[in-house]
Amino acid sequence: MEKQVLLYEGKAKKVYATGDPHLLIVSYKDDATAFNGLKKGTIQGKGAINNRMSNLLMSRLEQQGVPTHLVKELNDRETLVKKVSIVPLEVIVRNIAAGSFSKRYGVEEGLVFDAPTLEFSYKNDDLGDPLLNDDHALALGLASREELDLIRKYSLSVNRLLREIWGACGITLVDFKVEFGRLEDGTIVLADEISPDTCRLWDSKTLEKLDKDRFRRDLGGVEAAYVQVMNRLTGGL
Amino acid sequence: MEKQVLLYEGKAKKVYATGDPHLLIVSYKDDATAFNGLKKGTIQGKGAINNRMSNLLMSRLEQQGVPTHLVKELNDRETLVKKVSIVPLEVIVRNIAAGSFSKRYGVEEGLVFDAPTLEFSYKNDDLGDPLLNDDHALALGLASREELDLIRKYSLSVNRLLREIWGACGITLVDFKVEFGRLEDGTIVLADEISPDTCRLWDSKTLEKLDKDRFRRDLGGVEAAYVQVMNRLTGGL
Repeated sequence: MEKQVLLYEGKAKKVYATGDPHLLIVSYKDDATAFNGLKKGTIQGKGAINNRMSNLLMSRLEQQGVPTHLVKELNDRETLVKKVSIVPLEVIVRNIAAGSFSKRYGVEEGLVFDAPTLEFSYKNDDLGDPLLNDDHALALGLASREELDLIRKYSLSVNRLLREIWGACGITLVDFKVEFGRLEDGTIVLADEISPDTCRLWDSKTLEKLDKDRFRRDLGGVEAAYVQVMNRLTGGL
Repeated sequence: MEKQVLLYEGKAKKVYATGDPHLLIVSYKDDATAFNGLKKGTIQGKGAINNRMSNLLMSRLEQQGVPTHLVKELNDRETLVKKVSIVPLEVIVRNIAAGSFSKRYGVEEGLVFDAPTLEFSYKNDDLGDPLLNDDHALALGLASREELDLIRKYSLSVNRLLREIWGACGITLVDFKVEFGRLEDGTIVLADEISPDTCRLWDSKTLEKLDKDRFRRDLGGVEAAYVQVMNRLTGGL
């Protein structure tokens, strides 16, 4: 399967058409952005790590009953995926308070929730990806009631499975963002990626941050953290 | 029942203790604020109008099965109410896009929703009353699952009943904010007030704004709008 026209270039990935109208090729970049694009940089080797890691994790999720867009890894940066129309919702599941949750609600980072919290944001850069609830998503026509329920169910399964996987590697899953897409027949599948760009991952013992917060907050050792997470994951799987 | 010590002074009301530990006296002021207190002013006669209007509406809601804090109107600005501990959630029900909804989601004011939307904000001036969902409210310990469900049920009943009442006066209920409180035994009751300070009310034919947006947006005729709404309501009841 060969790359054809570039359909879309996002902050961390490029998406190409293929000879099959139902399939796309995703190519992972080393580019990193934060704060809705205000901060820009490069994390050497990130594209290859995120490509491999996301594929490993999506394969595991697929085996456990969460449908995904993954078809086949093509090379170190490129993966063949099913073509989807992205549901314009960012789904964030949190196990521990951090980031925008802590800031928005005045809660110290590190508060462990009794149960995971799930939130939707409206995927819209111009509006700053504002938080919304189910009623808002329905009023704006972003998804149907059935789709919201399915997305919630899948996202909580993803949380449960990822916590097990990361936990076995000595890593605590603090929170993560996922996106879903619709196949041509309307089937909802997990899309986008799962990586240290989209998950907060803390060393379970030292609480050291092993994710994009090292880039966002200028903590240094960004590349080393991505490599460490990848090594721990392939050791643990 | 006599006013005793001043317990609390808010943006639009003062609250006094009484000789009965289960009862308070609320005194409505003419003061008006907007944009989380950044804009301040006075609306002559507002206190008396809001006191009377809120009592009229809460009586009607109580008759229709929504429990409220209302006990008895004492005089033109003061009302005896049950003492509650306020649930720190602002509940906003919207029938038509306006205000913060339109701004947050980039939707033109006036879009009529197929179904009402309900949203919670965390009642916290320092944080700017941030939007939150049920999971967040539970994680922050602001209310129990049962309380959230009851508050949602009551708020949608309030919307249905207020739309009927205002509709009979030629006024469209665009949206409104309510707050709930817990009695000593935990019973949830509607508290705070229902007035042009807390509802968006548009003339059903001309769409003229007849509420606090006239103050917020410097539209003029603020006092006249409050008087007109009051006259239409007492004519219509």
